[in-house]
Amino acid sequence: MSASGEFKLYYWPTIPGRGEFVRLALEAGAQAYSDVARAPSSEGGGVAALISMLQDGGEHVVPFAPPILTFNGNTLAQTSAILHAIAPGLGLVASDESARTTALACQLTLADLVSEVHDTHHPISPMQHYEDQADTALRRSQAFVNDRMPKYLRYFERCVDTNTDSNQRWIFSAQMTYVDLSMFQVIAGLRHAFPNALDRLSHEVPKLMALAERVSEQDRVGAYLASERRIAFNQNGIFRHYPELDP
Amino acid sequence: MSASGEFKLYYWPTIPGRGEFVRLALEAGAQAYSDVARAPSSEGGGVAALISMLQDGGEHVVPFAPPILTFNGNTLAQTSAILHAIAPGLGLVASDESARTTALACQLTLADLVSEVHDTHHPISPMQHYEDQADTALRRSQAFVNDRMPKYLRYFERCVDTNTDSNQRWIFSAQMTYVDLSMFQVIAGLRHAFPNALDRLSHEVPKLMALAERVSEQDRVGAYLASERRIAFNQNGIFRHYPELDP
Repeated sequence: MSASGEFKLYYWPTIPGRGEFVRLALEAGAQAYSDVARAPSSEGGGVAALISMLQDGGEHVVPFAPPILTFNGNTLAQTSAILHAIAPGLGLVASDESARTTALACQLTLADLVSEVHDTHHPISPMQHYEDQADTALRRSQAFVNDRMPKYLRYFERCVDTNTDSNQRWIFSAQMTYVDLSMFQVIAGLRHAFPNALDRLSHEVPKLMALAERVSEQDRVGAYLASERRIAFNQNGIFRHYPELDP
Repeated sequence: MSASGEFKLYYWPTIPGRGEFVRLALEAGAQAYSDVARAPSSEGGGVAALISMLQDGGEHVVPFAPPILTFNGNTLAQTSAILHAIAPGLGLVASDESARTTALACQLTLADLVSEVHDTHHPISPMQHYEDQADTALRRSQAFVNDRMPKYLRYFERCVDTNTDSNQRWIFSAQMTYVDLSMFQVIAGLRHAFPNALDRLSHEVPKLMALAERVSEQDRVGAYLASERRIAFNQNGIFRHYPELDP
C-alpha cells in the first residue's frame, strides 16, 4: 500500500554511507519514511527491493547508485540532489532560489570531502578489497590527513565564522539547514575513522566542533541518534577505522 | 564597469577543467559573459582576480574552489550548482522543479565520473606531482578503464536509449540540456585522455557517441569550438593524455 505522498528510501541496509545524509534530513524534518531495504523481504523489503529499483528505475532516468528516494511521484538519486529537492518541504533550507543554490554549493563541497574520505581506504578501485590496496591507502590517507582534511575543515570553519546572520553560528544561514546536519555526520564520521587526526585538528576548528555538538542536541536528531534506526559506523561504509591509516 | 546582469566566470585561464562545463552552457545559451582570469591584468583580469575572489568570496559563503560564477547578484561555486542555477534562464533545462532536479542528479553522476578521471593521474593527492604517483596512477587507470569508465558510459547509454521523449535521443529530456553539453565534453575529454580505451568501448555506446557528435554540431556550440575562446585539452587539466595509462 503506497500513497503518493509516501517517502521511500532505498539504500544498503547495514551501513550509514551516503544514505545517512538523507536519513538525517528526513528525521530532523519529522518526515515519515520507509527504509525499504531494512524492511523484511516478506514485506517487499530487503536488498532485493534495492536491486530491483536499480534495475527498473523511475519514470525516465534509472538511478546509477543508491541512495534513491521516491516521493511525490519522483524517483531521485544522488545524495545532494535528493537533499536539495526535499529540504524546503522539511524546513531545512529557505525556499528562495538563492538560499537553495547556496546550500547546494555548500553540500557539494561537503560531498567532495566525503568522496575523498572514501578514497582513503579505496584509492585504486571500489571494486577491489582494502587489503589489495592497503599500501596505497596509507599514502593517500597521509595526504588526506595532512593536506585535504585540514583544507576542508578550515574552509567550513571560515564559513561558520563569517556567517553573521546567525547567533548560533550555522554554516551559512540563520537557521539550521541540511548542510549543518551533513556537517555533523562528517565530523562524527571523521571522529570514527581518523580520531587522532581529528583530535590534532579540532582546536583549529572549534566552531565546527561546537556546531556538530549542537546538531546532535536538536530534539529530533537526538531522539534519532538514540534509536535503533541509527546505524553505527562500521568497516563496510565510507567512514572506516583502520588504525594504520590514523597514526 | 559592472552591471548587475553581467555574468563573470572565474576559472584557471589555461586549462579547460571544470570551468569548461560552465563555458559550454554560457556559449550554447548565447549568454554574454566575461572570462575574468583570461582578461589582461590591466583590465582587472588575470589569475590575481581569481585568487582575490577565492579570498574575499561572495556575500555569505566564500567559494572553496573554482569555477565560480557571479551573476544577478549571486556568487556561486561548484560546477553542478552553477549549471543548475543558470540553465533555466539559458533554455538549457525545463523550468519545472522535477525536470531541474532530474537534470541535477544526472549532472552529479557525470561529475562523479569527472572526479574519477582526475584521480586516474592523481590517485594519491592533487598536491603532488604526477611523476611522484605514476605507479599508482597506472593501477588506478587500469581499474578506471576496465571497470569504472564502462560502467558509467553504459549507464548513460541506457539513459539515452530509454529516453523515449526525444526523437533525437538526448540523455533524459525532449530537448538538449546542459547535461548533454557536459556529456559532449566528457566524451571529448575521454577521447583525448584514453583514446584507445574509448575506441574499444565506443561500439557498446553508439547512441552516446552520436549524441556527443550532435552536440558539437549545434550552431552556437560549433561556433564556440572553432573560436579562440575554446581551450584545448592539455597536460594540466582533468583530461590528460599519458600514453602509459592508455595502452
